[in-house]
Amino acid sequence: MIVRSKPGFWDVAFAVNGSILPRIAPHLVAIALISVLAIFAAMEHPGIFARISAVPFTLIGIALSVFMSFRNSTCYARWWEGRELWGKLIIACRSFARQISTLEDDDRRVLLRGLCGFCSGLTARLRGEDEVAAIKPWSEIDVASVGPNPTNAVLNQIGLHCLMLMKRDRIEPIHYAVLEGQLTALSDVQGGCERIASTPVPFAYSLLLHRTALIFCVTLPFALAGSLDWWTLLPVLLVAYTFFGLDALGHQLEAPFGSEPNALPLDAMRRGIEREMLALLGERDLPAPIEPRQNVLM
Amino acid sequence: MIVRSKPGFWDVAFAVNGSILPRIAPHLVAIALISVLAIFAAMEHPGIFARISAVPFTLIGIALSVFMSFRNSTCYARWWEGRELWGKLIIACRSFARQISTLEDDDRRVLLRGLCGFCSGLTARLRGEDEVAAIKPWSEIDVASVGPNPTNAVLNQIGLHCLMLMKRDRIEPIHYAVLEGQLTALSDVQGGCERIASTPVPFAYSLLLHRTALIFCVTLPFALAGSLDWWTLLPVLLVAYTFFGLDALGHQLEAPFGSEPNALPLDAMRRGIEREMLALLGERDLPAPIEPRQNVLM
Amino acid sequence: MIVRSKPGFWDVAFAVNGSILPRIAPHLVAIALISVLAIFAAMEHPGIFARISAVPFTLIGIALSVFMSFRNSTCYARWWEGRELWGKLIIACRSFARQISTLEDDDRRVLLRGLCGFCSGLTARLRGEDEVAAIKPWSEIDVASVGPNPTNAVLNQIGLHCLMLMKRDRIEPIHYAVLEGQLTALSDVQGGCERIASTPVPFAYSLLLHRTALIFCVTLPFALAGSLDWWTLLPVLLVAYTFFGLDALGHQLEAPFGSEPNALPLDAMRRGIEREMLALLGERDLPAPIEPRQNVLM
Amino acid sequence: MIVRSKPGFWDVAFAVNGSILPRIAPHLVAIALISVLAIFAAMEHPGIFARISAVPFTLIGIALSVFMSFRNSTCYARWWEGRELWGKLIIACRSFARQISTLEDDDRRVLLRGLCGFCSGLTARLRGEDEVAAIKPWSEIDVASVGPNPTNAVLNQIGLHCLMLMKRDRIEPIHYAVLEGQLTALSDVQGGCERIASTPVPFAYSLLLHRTALIFCVTLPFALAGSLDWWTLLPVLLVAYTFFGLDALGHQLEAPFGSEPNALPLDAMRRGIEREMLALLGERDLPAPIEPRQNVLM
Amino acid sequence: MIVRSKPGFWDVAFAVNGSILPRIAPHLVAIALISVLAIFAAMEHPGIFARISAVPFTLIGIALSVFMSFRNSTCYARWWEGRELWGKLIIACRSFARQISTLEDDDRRVLLRGLCGFCSGLTARLRGEDEVAAIKPWSEIDVASVGPNPTNAVLNQIGLHCLMLMKRDRIEPIHYAVLEGQLTALSDVQGGCERIASTPVPFAYSLLLHRTALIFCVTLPFALAGSLDWWTLLPVLLVAYTFFGLDALGHQLEAPFGSEPNALPLDAMRRGIEREMLALLGERDLPAPIEPRQNVLM
Repeated sequence: MIVRSKPGFWDVAFAVNGSILPRIAPHLVAIALISVLAIFAAMEHPGIFARISAVPFTLIGIALSVFMSFRNSTCYARWWEGRELWGKLIIACRSFARQISTLEDDDRRVLLRGLCGFCSGLTARLRGEDEVAAIKPWSEIDVASVGPNPTNAVLNQIGLHCLMLMKRDRIEPIHYAVLEGQLTALSDVQGGCERIASTPVPFAYSLLLHRTALIFCVTLPFALAGSLDWWTLLPVLLVAYTFFGLDALGHQLEAPFGSEPNALPLDAMRRGIEREMLALLGERDLPAPIEPRQNVLM
Repeated sequence: MIVRSKPGFWDVAFAVNGSILPRIAPHLVAIALISVLAIFAAMEHPGIFARISAVPFTLIGIALSVFMSFRNSTCYARWWEGRELWGKLIIACRSFARQISTLEDDDRRVLLRGLCGFCSGLTARLRGEDEVAAIKPWSEIDVASVGPNPTNAVLNQIGLHCLMLMKRDRIEPIHYAVLEGQLTALSDVQGGCERIASTPVPFAYSLLLHRTALIFCVTLPFALAGSLDWWTLLPVLLVAYTFFGLDALGHQLEAPFGSEPNALPLDAMRRGIEREMLALLGERDLPAPIEPRQNVLM
Repeated sequence: MIVRSKPGFWDVAFAVNGSILPRIAPHLVAIALISVLAIFAAMEHPGIFARISAVPFTLIGIALSVFMSFRNSTCYARWWEGRELWGKLIIACRSFARQISTLEDDDRRVLLRGLCGFCSGLTARLRGEDEVAAIKPWSEIDVASVGPNPTNAVLNQIGLHCLMLMKRDRIEPIHYAVLEGQLTALSDVQGGCERIASTPVPFAYSLLLHRTALIFCVTLPFALAGSLDWWTLLPVLLVAYTFFGLDALGHQLEAPFGSEPNALPLDAMRRGIEREMLALLGERDLPAPIEPRQNVLM
Repeated sequence: MIVRSKPGFWDVAFAVNGSILPRIAPHLVAIALISVLAIFAAMEHPGIFARISAVPFTLIGIALSVFMSFRNSTCYARWWEGRELWGKLIIACRSFARQISTLEDDDRRVLLRGLCGFCSGLTARLRGEDEVAAIKPWSEIDVASVGPNPTNAVLNQIGLHCLMLMKRDRIEPIHYAVLEGQLTALSDVQGGCERIASTPVPFAYSLLLHRTALIFCVTLPFALAGSLDWWTLLPVLLVAYTFFGLDALGHQLEAPFGSEPNALPLDAMRRGIEREMLALLGERDLPAPIEPRQNVLM
Repeated sequence: MIVRSKPGFWDVAFAVNGSILPRIAPHLVAIALISVLAIFAAMEHPGIFARISAVPFTLIGIALSVFMSFRNSTCYARWWEGRELWGKLIIACRSFARQISTLEDDDRRVLLRGLCGFCSGLTARLRGEDEVAAIKPWSEIDVASVGPNPTNAVLNQIGLHCLMLMKRDRIEPIHYAVLEGQLTALSDVQGGCERIASTPVPFAYSLLLHRTALIFCVTLPFALAGSLDWWTLLPVLLVAYTFFGLDALGHQLEAPFGSEPNALPLDAMRRGIEREMLALLGERDLPAPIEPRQNVLM
């Protein structure tokens, strides 16, 4: 996630860090070259180009804006839902910790460290890293029998521990049900994150919009060159910047658990949970919060 | 579901697999032929065509974009809700499995295999296949008395098993309530999927938009041919590609449990659940996950 | 609900059944006549009409599209929420039936037939028919003391039966709470359906859009006749078809429990529930599912 | 709430009652006068006005439509959420009544009349009337110690009564939890209604749109007068009617608990609940339902 | 939050307080100066400017409107969700207070004052003020061991108190579960508010729109000056006012817990909760409600 204050005047003019500009610069250069080509062609053969009117391009451009706006709001909704799920993760960990505050210290240690292991495992799972290695420092899991879903195995261990506490009359049955409610919330978070990570916006949709935007920007200079001359560059580049920029940004937000600058700061949130859980276990020497590097918080 | 990485340059130019293009190619050819006709007619009778202005078409085109955008977001919402329901299915199965982890192995086997049977039955039901045959390998159901809803019958069996466990004091009443909460979630999933599968977007709505888009694309060349000459082909085909493409794509997303390339990968998700449930039962020899064929995951 | 497959080529050209066309045909004829009038007037007095430009009409038309799109999505949301509520009804009936599967047959019969009575009563209530008559075949209710809400009275009877089971120690208190959860879901369904049925989209909103659309379509020919001549008919009729069609369709979807072809198939869904409940009571001779008549499922 | 059937032909032409027209008539007259002024000015100084083009006004008008559409959907969402909350109120009252149906008549009388008092108090609170006076006929509350929130005090009394029933073993603890669930729903309703009533759409937003719409409508005649002559009046008045009408309607829907004709019928819904509760207490002489006056249901 | 009645005529014309105008005035002056520059340039070199057409600007302007509308609705949704969370806070405090009304006065005092401390701590946390200092007057927290999240520590204390009440058989286990439900709601509120406060709309998105709007407004005068002459100022300033105003307003709403005039009135809501809690503890001398200063309620 990019952490910057409101764009001020100079940012608007010159900000590169955090901007989508570097990503789409090659496209803009290509469109600029095509525009120059179109302008020279229009000077050579003014007759041909005079016939091309900008009116159908207005129609196509507005239609494209409407459809791109839908794609953008969809991608943003995915990104925001990812953040909501991680917010739910934080809330469930805190609530679970509060609800076991009368248990003995050994139980609390196992359970709260288990929650940290779950968060680490989930982060690794969503980023395609080694889940078992991420869980190991926090929770003992049997590598041999862990099955296809190590992160869920941690949750199963926590659930089993709670069931055993009920069986041994250390907690009331209703207390078990309350705790299990938080574990179900954690399952919801894992399932929801996996859903977002494994199900992109339909490929055909992205392709259709990407294609239409590209053809539109490539042909627009030919429609304007006849009447606008060198002024053609200004609207063409502004349109290309907006359309390509939104397309690239939508693509980044679509996968909110990735490693792009605009992805969600999973590491920072995970560390925040670890700090709170360890503090509740009485530790004073907490790991430091994760700070943004070059305005990017991971 | 089509599994491809972000469209690169050559994809944008040439990708056919995963594109909606093959589906709408005949329409585009027809529109191109009509455009050629319009262009020749405009050359023959320039007087008539000079009178037709593109302005009312801009109005109609933009109105159509606004309405098609609504239809598209509705169809996408149906597709995404289908995915959310299957995500809920995965979560409920995992949570149920966690909540019965202190039961004896025989009970766990019956219950977890029952969940697999429910998933198989639901897949078959949503795709119009033989539910009973799909359930058979996982769960014993009485074919004779199964009634009109075999998939729900599996859920009833699981529920009955839980009730019997409570009756025999093998689980606490509150534990029964917790388990039943997951079964209600599974009922929600089945009911929600049936709702999406049985209730399309109102036919009159699809028909109205389909008709308007068709008439618009067929008449657009006549409005442009007078002034654009052979250039007419470019905006007409771009508009037709966008409108027909979105219409066809919307139609595919509207029925997310079908067998179109953009449908949800029910088989892959069902197999994922089976693998997790079987691993929890201690099986080492899990069925392999389902892989995409030619970029399509079913 | 209209049950048809995807509109094919001939449907698009000629489908009348299931289309909104018959409903708005008189308006289209009127607009066509006004257009002819405008065309003749423009031929007689070309000077006057030459001054009218289509540009302000583009502005008004696009503004109208944006506002009509909002009305359409609102009406569709009401229709879809109605369907979601009936889906919830189906789910709650199934879950309730599962949760009472260890009760004695007499209790189950009274309770499940009570659910059927609730569904019948709700259907009658939403359609303004005789609720008591609809409930009678399924459940004994005291006509004299039934009060202003017979459908809710059935639910009260079911709730009272469950309370008595708890009082007599036939079910655990927590089991009562689980059952009552489903009854609350049924109350939600009734309350939600009544909300949709009794609270239309604000009248002033419908009137404003209806009026603007009408004035727009009536005056559009006068703006186009000066330049388009006989071609005026094409865009005017296309615009009128789209705007009047969406307006009429929105009006149908706004009241999803009515008797219009696009209303929800309450009878078919109610019958589906009855079939499932009766099958669970061991009946073999189930009433037949309701089939669509002339593509309309009620 | 305005209770009228679908606008028929004559309604569209002449309906005043239920229309937003009377509210905005002065503005329309002012705009008409300004238009006449602009037309005369354009006749006097055609040179100046010929330069003004309608194109930038198309841009501004469409931008304004997009933003007003957002404001409208926001205001409608507030109105509809208000209705949903009152639907939840009705459902919670019915469910609570069902859940106490085995209590003794005295308890039921106190509790159900308490619900009626809560509804009366909430209505008074939302409309800025005297809450204590509204509650008095239904429930005994201690005026001296009632604190800043009399409506919530009624709920506290009901909650205390339920707690006492549990303390005296008249109801099971789990039964108390079920009842308290409905009381929490009633708290949700009160809190939600207070939120809508006390938090308008940000003032700066309303002001910005109101101002832009006004400047747009005042200057539009000057842009059109040069080319359209007396025809200017038609598009200008149609645009002004739509924009001012939607603005005024949005303002009415924004405050759904007010006393405007489009506000929600709180009195009628409250009376409906009273009738159902009194019928459940065995009363035969129910207060009459509230009927609309001049098509307006309050 | 700005507390003003509906903008009347003079407000529309002259309101400054509560308007976004002062914030964007420098930008508008700059745009006006650029416009004057463009007009003089167009008078000097009419040949160059005559070539620039307004049509591509219409396209860009409408596309920009569509994208800005998305940003605006997103920012408004954040603001409204912030308000919903604080509404949930009010509801949870009231419900918790109702559910403990049979406890002894000492317990009630500790718990209800704890809720006030939670609200104060949350306010301070969201505004970056000193949490511990804000909590101190209400609740005893151990400053030394409070860890990184003092506000949550208050909640943990309340939860621990409830657990102890259950352990000592002063409340039923199910009663504990009911109370814990409200504490979980309070955790939801804290987590949700932290999510909104710590996760802005992606920086690249704001930057892209801000940049496009700025370039658009700066270049628009050059496109219009050729044909509109001094009239250029009117549409340019109206467009700049709308776009810059919505951009600035979106930026304010994006951070609903800040100290801008349009931020949510956290202090007033917190004080409202304190008044209700203290009144329930029997105090008569309540702190006064917070009043708006110069129309701004904080």
